[in-house]
Amino acid sequence: MLAAWQAAPASSRIAVTTVPLIYLKLGGSLITEKDNPETPRLDVLERLTREIARARKARPRRQLVLGHGSGSFGHVSAQRHGTRIGVNSKNDWYGFAVTADAAARLNRIVAAQLLQADLPAWTVQPSAALRCKDGRVVSGPAETVRLALERGLLPLIHGDVALDSVRGGTIASTEEIFEEMAAQLPPVRIVLAGEVEGVYTSDPRKDPTAALLREITPSSFSSLQAALGASHATDVTGGMAAKVEQSLRMVRALPGLEVIVCGGLLPGAVFSALTDLSDPPGTLIHAGAPRGLS
Amino acid sequence: MLAAWQAAPASSRIAVTTVPLIYLKLGGSLITEKDNPETPRLDVLERLTREIARARKARPRRQLVLGHGSGSFGHVSAQRHGTRIGVNSKNDWYGFAVTADAAARLNRIVAAQLLQADLPAWTVQPSAALRCKDGRVVSGPAETVRLALERGLLPLIHGDVALDSVRGGTIASTEEIFEEMAAQLPPVRIVLAGEVEGVYTSDPRKDPTAALLREITPSSFSSLQAALGASHATDVTGGMAAKVEQSLRMVRALPGLEVIVCGGLLPGAVFSALTDLSDPPGTLIHAGAPRGLS
Repeated sequence: MLAAWQAAPASSRIAVTTVPLIYLKLGGSLITEKDNPETPRLDVLERLTREIARARKARPRRQLVLGHGSGSFGHVSAQRHGTRIGVNSKNDWYGFAVTADAAARLNRIVAAQLLQADLPAWTVQPSAALRCKDGRVVSGPAETVRLALERGLLPLIHGDVALDSVRGGTIASTEEIFEEMAAQLPPVRIVLAGEVEGVYTSDPRKDPTAALLREITPSSFSSLQAALGASHATDVTGGMAAKVEQSLRMVRALPGLEVIVCGGLLPGAVFSALTDLSDPPGTLIHAGAPRGLS
Repeated sequence: MLAAWQAAPASSRIAVTTVPLIYLKLGGSLITEKDNPETPRLDVLERLTREIARARKARPRRQLVLGHGSGSFGHVSAQRHGTRIGVNSKNDWYGFAVTADAAARLNRIVAAQLLQADLPAWTVQPSAALRCKDGRVVSGPAETVRLALERGLLPLIHGDVALDSVRGGTIASTEEIFEEMAAQLPPVRIVLAGEVEGVYTSDPRKDPTAALLREITPSSFSSLQAALGASHATDVTGGMAAKVEQSLRMVRALPGLEVIVCGGLLPGAVFSALTDLSDPPGTLIHAGAPRGLS
């Protein structure tokens, strides 16, 4: 992948690197009903699609890669077969195929909404290109996504199954695919839109005193962890711990990258995250000097 | 692609080359209603799926790559935007995305039927890997298909849009994708199942005296063309001319390859084409000595 990227004509490389690129993930819990298997939240999806279309009109010089989680699509099958930890038996491979199908079915629903809003959304099935090694993404769809961006398409990816040289098969989340892609197509911002409005000091669904963190940097995260005691480290962010740690890894690796964790249920938040570079909604994760957002 | 293939461990290469591999295409006109846009022929599809499942049980040591045409899915959009001849304007790219979506929607219907029949069908979206140069496929999904076959999956592809270094974008048929794939994953047989029962001396839907050709070789095709006069060359096979010429090109390029053109509306024909190596249904196209099929 990297070789192909380097071999691209200089003009195309410049085209991508000089146009600000944003990645947006619509979380699976945001666009599907958690308690009803394989039920999309069409009203939410339709509104988010309009916000994306509005943002593209407002910032025509910005490029966008869109991804989404699978939520309650394929979750049952992936869980039952333990697809993420490895795929071995004939039955496991059937589960792999069923899980892939469920993710692709939700993707068609998302694509339909985007096309309906006149967006040139083109799915690039991640698993057609993904190669993992013991659960880690080693290559992915970056080259096809780059060519799609050059043509003015809106590349659409999703959490997917993946072939794995150690586990046979596995699952790769949108964030994991984004992380590998970011090394080749560096974004200025990654927006992770979920159900919750950002990263909180504790789980806001359980703790009424939970406070939204407006800004996280590698050093502020260390202080926060220290203040709460190492044993509480994973509770700091509730189910968000892994997401924050992955985000911190990315902002450290890519100079200038910002990750925004925001809530997609709040109308306008995704539009703002895509267009407002100075005062984004939710939580801003970056590796620069603290900005004192409030 | 070729480099990756050659770099694969010897064991995996042997696994593929020693197990007889068959490609099967279900024609778009076979699995969709020509006169009703975007309407699948579910009864036909369900029966064909059962035949495929039965064939896999009867010949468990044989590997299969399955493909299908798009028929009346995406046809309107591809026609309106002239996607095959090139993609330039913003509107053309929107048409490209709509055409891709239609092909993918039909593919989900096909995948659902296959999974229903307990087949581990896994779509490998061709356009995620396809690269064309002025309408000619230069690389495709062969490497991912190879890895899927090694794992016992049933790789499923389809006619699709494709990125093109000259035309911007184009359309690649299942046959065109098969042709490029065959150079890397050589099949022993390619089965092209359509509405018509094989290749006829003239169009059987218009000419009651049309006779089914049981066998075509490069030399018999030349004689046939000469007998009918060069000006009738394209009429020999009705709409099949291009298909026969492409098939002859493939059997000449790949020693031992047979192409079967058969009718999928006749129950049992696809099962027979997948399992019967001595007396296949329809028309056998090959580059060997004439076998005198009757």
